Amino acid sequence: MEGGFSMVKIAVDMMGSDSGPETLVDSIKHYLKDFDDVSFLLFGDEKVLSELTKDCPDKNRIEIHNTTSIIPMEIKPLEFLRAKSSSMYQAISAVKEGLADGVLTAGSTGGFVTGATILLRTVEGVLRAGLCSPFPTRKASHPAVILDIGANNYDTEEEVYQFGIMGRLYYQHVLENQNPSVYILTNGAEEGKGTDEVVGAYRLMRERNLPGFKGNVEAREALDGNHDVIVTPGYPGNIFLKACEGVAKMMNDLIKESFKMNLLTKIGYLFSSKGFKRMRKTLDYRQYGGAILLGINGVCVKAHGNSNEYAFYHAIGVCKKMIDVKIVDKIKEEFHDSVNNND
Amino acid sequence: MEGGFSMVKIAVDMMGSDSGPETLVDSIKHYLKDFDDVSFLLFGDEKVLSELTKDCPDKNRIEIHNTTSIIPMEIKPLEFLRAKSSSMYQAISAVKEGLADGVLTAGSTGGFVTGATILLRTVEGVLRAGLCSPFPTRKASHPAVILDIGANNYDTEEEVYQFGIMGRLYYQHVLENQNPSVYILTNGAEEGKGTDEVVGAYRLMRERNLPGFKGNVEAREALDGNHDVIVTPGYPGNIFLKACEGVAKMMNDLIKESFKMNLLTKIGYLFSSKGFKRMRKTLDYRQYGGAILLGINGVCVKAHGNSNEYAFYHAIGVCKKMIDVKIVDKIKEEFHDSVNNND
Repeated sequence: MEGGFSMVKIAVDMMGSDSGPETLVDSIKHYLKDFDDVSFLLFGDEKVLSELTKDCPDKNRIEIHNTTSIIPMEIKPLEFLRAKSSSMYQAISAVKEGLADGVLTAGSTGGFVTGATILLRTVEGVLRAGLCSPFPTRKASHPAVILDIGANNYDTEEEVYQFGIMGRLYYQHVLENQNPSVYILTNGAEEGKGTDEVVGAYRLMRERNLPGFKGNVEAREALDGNHDVIVTPGYPGNIFLKACEGVAKMMNDLIKESFKMNLLTKIGYLFSSKGFKRMRKTLDYRQYGGAILLGINGVCVKAHGNSNEYAFYHAIGVCKKMIDVKIVDKIKEEFHDSVNNND
Repeated sequence: MEGGFSMVKIAVDMMGSDSGPETLVDSIKHYLKDFDDVSFLLFGDEKVLSELTKDCPDKNRIEIHNTTSIIPMEIKPLEFLRAKSSSMYQAISAVKEGLADGVLTAGSTGGFVTGATILLRTVEGVLRAGLCSPFPTRKASHPAVILDIGANNYDTEEEVYQFGIMGRLYYQHVLENQNPSVYILTNGAEEGKGTDEVVGAYRLMRERNLPGFKGNVEAREALDGNHDVIVTPGYPGNIFLKACEGVAKMMNDLIKESFKMNLLTKIGYLFSSKGFKRMRKTLDYRQYGGAILLGINGVCVKAHGNSNEYAFYHAIGVCKKMIDVKIVDKIKEEFHDSVNNND
């Protein structure tokens, strides 16, 4: 406690980012300057981190924990358990031990899902954690929250149904929209479309009256800004995520090329750049900071591997917000009720 | 035979298009004007079609067959069998009876897959037909051919492997590239990524030395122009297709809005429009005409439901090309060999 309000503590795995710990330190400094109710536990190479944080604005709000290894991009559960000396293992453990209120990493997604599930476990009643990400949509500042985008290869109908409950709670409390609509991503809008688990999830949502449930949505309409929470098993969810990223990148490249074609088109850019800056802002997924592992006993945020300072700054914000609104408690209450109701 | 070369006959379901038979008739007239080695069997409402084709440039190359019903967007196999009077049923039957060399529709995809499979059957040795579509990529005029994009919900590892064989033959003969690369779409580039059928297909392609097989590709890289044939089970394939369409449409809308924002941005468009016209051309999926049902005993092309005259004209071209290069015979030969080799 400081000055009458609680200090939020975030454990950060400083070693997994593509761009190295420098970028993460820059974001953290920036965040410390902007907010006075957060402190950080930094896990990584002590020598490197001490040097980088030398000029930190508020040194009593950072704490460096030396770690001696890094979780590789691909890791098996048993290997993770053996990697106790790694920055990611230690950062997750800090939440388990109550030293931190949430954990943030830009490292291996697979490692993080494995580690968080093993060390923190899923909330009682939650069958499996889902990786959840806000996507930019056609409507500025109106994200669609999609899960699972790749924590799992397979999900049962019950798991997909539970993603609906958790995605909805996330939208309500973190994105502050009390009545989000909930849809199932599938290969046709009609009831009965899709694979067995998707058809089964539809049935469960209807039978159990999931609030806001509106039916199926095709991938084509998912990002039109009229679909708030969208659930899917992790494998097609991951294909969806990466297809969107791929087409957006391709079109961005082609837009740049279009303007660079000749002198006239370059002049065209001078006149129209304001419109395109607005477009870039609408589509900037970095404003949403990364993906959240929902259903775990602890706030777990996975920043983009190629996060720049701006993206990582927002990932810290997401982590902070989830802690502030006590999203894990909200999920616990919901599943506690449903576990009891089903008895 | 006419003038020493063979006349290709294409059966066209005139009644399934969103924009009505008018657009299809316009494309056909255009095609008749441009090429003299094609004739058409048109299936649909005789009265309407007679009126529309009154001023047809070469009337002896069209033949109208009256049909009295239309296959709805959603249809079950048994219902299809009962819909004998429909334009789609009759158009497919024309191929079965040897009256036409290929069939073209802009109607229900599900109906077409069902009808073609029931009436024409799959090629001996082919376990299941796959819906195959050329996608525009980062490189102009260098499509990626992806299948299955939604004929099936589930596919076995052997089916996904067979899509590789058929996609490769399509790329070689229809797109005239003798050495296409072949990839499996999945949620990570490393071997072992993905669901069981995808991991199994990888193993089969390695064991049986599928020519051109290069491993996995993530959805993010699929359309970079370096991946020629990409195979996937139909459900994630459909999610991929529609995610791409959705993002491309969203970005096109945002580009338009960006230019329309104010007077300056409108002036910007005047200067830069040449670049953006080139971009639109690169990304125009209509240049590829639609999707092809590969593995069926007959040339089967599904034009986009919202085909305009230009798109349908290209769909006719694709159908013609597949007939000219005898793609069905090529697939038969390949599977005849493999059936014998496996014995």
